[in-house]
Amino acid sequence: MGGSGSEKFDHPYVPRDLKLEGYVPVFLSQSTIVGVYGVSSLLVFFLVWFLSGRSPKRSRIDRWLMCWWAFTGLTHMILEGYFAFSPEFYKDKTPFYLSEVWKEYSKGDSRYAARDAGVVAVEGITAVLEGPACLLAIYAIAAGKSYSYILQFAISLGQLYGTAVYFITSILEGDNFATSSYYYYAYYVAANASWVVIPTLISIRCWKKICASVASQSQGQKKAKTR
Amino acid sequence: MGGSGSEKFDHPYVPRDLKLEGYVPVFLSQSTIVGVYGVSSLLVFFLVWFLSGRSPKRSRIDRWLMCWWAFTGLTHMILEGYFAFSPEFYKDKTPFYLSEVWKEYSKGDSRYAARDAGVVAVEGITAVLEGPACLLAIYAIAAGKSYSYILQFAISLGQLYGTAVYFITSILEGDNFATSSYYYYAYYVAANASWVVIPTLISIRCWKKICASVASQSQGQKKAKTR
Repeated sequence: MGGSGSEKFDHPYVPRDLKLEGYVPVFLSQSTIVGVYGVSSLLVFFLVWFLSGRSPKRSRIDRWLMCWWAFTGLTHMILEGYFAFSPEFYKDKTPFYLSEVWKEYSKGDSRYAARDAGVVAVEGITAVLEGPACLLAIYAIAAGKSYSYILQFAISLGQLYGTAVYFITSILEGDNFATSSYYYYAYYVAANASWVVIPTLISIRCWKKICASVASQSQGQKKAKTR
Repeated sequence: MGGSGSEKFDHPYVPRDLKLEGYVPVFLSQSTIVGVYGVSSLLVFFLVWFLSGRSPKRSRIDRWLMCWWAFTGLTHMILEGYFAFSPEFYKDKTPFYLSEVWKEYSKGDSRYAARDAGVVAVEGITAVLEGPACLLAIYAIAAGKSYSYILQFAISLGQLYGTAVYFITSILEGDNFATSSYYYYAYYVAANASWVVIPTLISIRCWKKICASVASQSQGQKKAKTR
């Protein structure tokens, strides 16, 4: 069961000289850990897609966005929230799903187990501020609130800034935190890619929508003056 | 002139066991360093205030914002840009102003001299992306561009995110990087406070302006449909 402290570096992570006293190995298989996340995410997507479809006026893109905000918001609050406030997850002696997730993910980026300050800061901001804001975005879209675009823009920009800090600090610190190149590409690169691509697309869309509104309002004001 | 390496910890920074081989002490006095920055900033403010006043239609708040974007943009690009790309500024053997600034500021936060990855990542993003974006904001306000508010909102949010990462990583790493409580409050707290207060105010203003535009546009569309 490990964690007895008899071996000095009793963990699978890189760099090998990382000290993690009391480390308890992961219990669940990779397919179980990734599978539970994948299936839960699909369930969230289908549920929000189904519920949002009950209003016939709602566009497909708005429904898709509501699914995204539900998925990313719950990921921020539950998964990343657990990490941000559980400095000793790697010592967990039970197969508790959320600590298993981070034990497994640390194979792609050991800074999670090592509690790198940059990673914890970004995950904390993401969990505490952006997570609830994502759920608010679902409501804003559903209710057609005037702050819908600017809120989605703000969260997406926060996600992009967080991902930028995440990758840049890794490069500055030597980019040597993955157990193997498989975990490097599967966890560190691929799992984070969605939070680069999707927030970029949403930011561009919101930017355009907002500029169009501002332009149309100022044209309206000019017309009103000319009359 | 120091830097000979005969003493082990030949620098004024905290923590005392920080290794800075080749450190050369600051040449200029504190009043010179702070004074040059203060006077240059005031010059920038007055110049932009004067130039922006030549258009009689321009509001006082827009003129004030143009001054702020000029001041903060030049600070990001010149001061923070120099830091981001000068890992060995503390070894500078000449009284070059920009290296003097960071030798002096490191008394408030030694992570600058120690090249903390979180600090370098935030300063790099600020210098490379936000700096030029601030200068674009001046043009956007001057030319009355429709992207003026969303751009100002984006930069302000970036500044707030950066400041949040800056303070949170410091707390997580023990908040023990200031030479004395004087430097802690004068440099680390007071000098950064402007980048908490002003971006917050600008973000709120842009949020409100954008919401008003979106609301007015969607009302206009409803009216057009009713006709």
